[in-house]
Amino acid sequence: MALGTCRAVLITGCNRGIGLGLVRGFLARSPSPDLVIATCRHPDQAQELQHLKEQHRNLRVLQLDVLCENSIKKAVQETETLVGEQGLNCLINNAGINRIATLDSVTAQDMRTVYETNTVAQLMVSKEFLPLLRKAACQDTIMGIHRAAIINMSSCTASMQQFRQFRKSELVYPYRIAKTALNMITCCLAADLISDGILCISMNPGWVKTDMGGSKAPLQLKESIPGILNVLANLRDKDHGTFLDWRGEVLPW
Amino acid sequence: MALGTCRAVLITGCNRGIGLGLVRGFLARSPSPDLVIATCRHPDQAQELQHLKEQHRNLRVLQLDVLCENSIKKAVQETETLVGEQGLNCLINNAGINRIATLDSVTAQDMRTVYETNTVAQLMVSKEFLPLLRKAACQDTIMGIHRAAIINMSSCTASMQQFRQFRKSELVYPYRIAKTALNMITCCLAADLISDGILCISMNPGWVKTDMGGSKAPLQLKESIPGILNVLANLRDKDHGTFLDWRGEVLPW
Repeated sequence: MALGTCRAVLITGCNRGIGLGLVRGFLARSPSPDLVIATCRHPDQAQELQHLKEQHRNLRVLQLDVLCENSIKKAVQETETLVGEQGLNCLINNAGINRIATLDSVTAQDMRTVYETNTVAQLMVSKEFLPLLRKAACQDTIMGIHRAAIINMSSCTASMQQFRQFRKSELVYPYRIAKTALNMITCCLAADLISDGILCISMNPGWVKTDMGGSKAPLQLKESIPGILNVLANLRDKDHGTFLDWRGEVLPW
Repeated sequence: MALGTCRAVLITGCNRGIGLGLVRGFLARSPSPDLVIATCRHPDQAQELQHLKEQHRNLRVLQLDVLCENSIKKAVQETETLVGEQGLNCLINNAGINRIATLDSVTAQDMRTVYETNTVAQLMVSKEFLPLLRKAACQDTIMGIHRAAIINMSSCTASMQQFRQFRKSELVYPYRIAKTALNMITCCLAADLISDGILCISMNPGWVKTDMGGSKAPLQLKESIPGILNVLANLRDKDHGTFLDWRGEVLPW
């Protein structure tokens, strides 16, 4: 497999927003991966994915609720059947939620709920897909998404270093705290998986106009998605364990 | 109140380890705070605290289970009675737990349990004590623990920048991920509370020989505690929103 592309990519949270944008982006690339595995909680309700499936023979749509251990294990089994001995090259942990909560309004339950989906689930999904990523990693020696990679979709709000200006914390306590924790998961995975040749990064897709990002977001999907795909295509060992944005710039933790 | 000392300090998780060490340290300082409020889940079982109480008239021991909303509210009421109109100068969020868990062994439940105690609880305790910290902040204009401060006890394992060497992630996934998230809480509180004059930092006490730190830890309590107390005494506005260690060195996030 050539550098810069991959045989099989799996993305979580693909029913809308950035996840759906990534699916469209991978399908539109030339060459497109042999397998784009789009997952979401309710495939039968994901009309756009179903419509895309009719147009693209390399798209598979699987049910995956990242909060449900059985659902993760079932998706791993189904993915194993699809990818075979060549394994899974790229796992994009994209599924996530937001809760609007200021210092005054934030509750312990908000904190738990967002951490569960945006942090704990990403670790558990990564763990379960590791055997398939390791299979793929054995097929090559140079790091990159052509070999094996875990991409954790993080956020510009997760950078503590860029927070030093002390702007007000902008209504998203549970979200930014959970995304910072996800960045540490990237660091931990990078430390543990370098010997397997599995490249791990956090990706800031930018603040994008989506259902979650809202209408005030400065960025369009058509700017963010091609940027992300170019960054992914150019990932090399020097990027392992870093926090990159959609333009390929390194963000400080 | 002179710079470098404070009238009233409250510390969570004081039955042993660093919490108990901080209580002893504050009591031994000259001048000692007018009120050292040591809290723990089971004061009746905290023999060393009870023994100290017999020797020090400025020590109060309160029941506080940081996971229990009612317990936090009750401790706030009791503290309000103790500190009166001058408020609480310094809240040290020290209570915490560890779980030994590698990438292979870590479970979603480990992640939840440690986040609840080491991250969510620190935010909830801080929120509830804010009215008493704001009262104290009104009494002065120069930032420091003589005025009002929130000290989040973090960990050297929480620094992502210092993780770039990609050592193996050393058995403590849930702990280091939750402490990194706690560091983001420090950033958020720093952004939101600067206008109140409440100084917020994360403190790395070092890896200390305690029940939690274990016998392999390179540092003794008698080295860490005086260091921490000196750093706290010298906190100024330039330190607001930073991550400091027991020697006063700034750690990268």
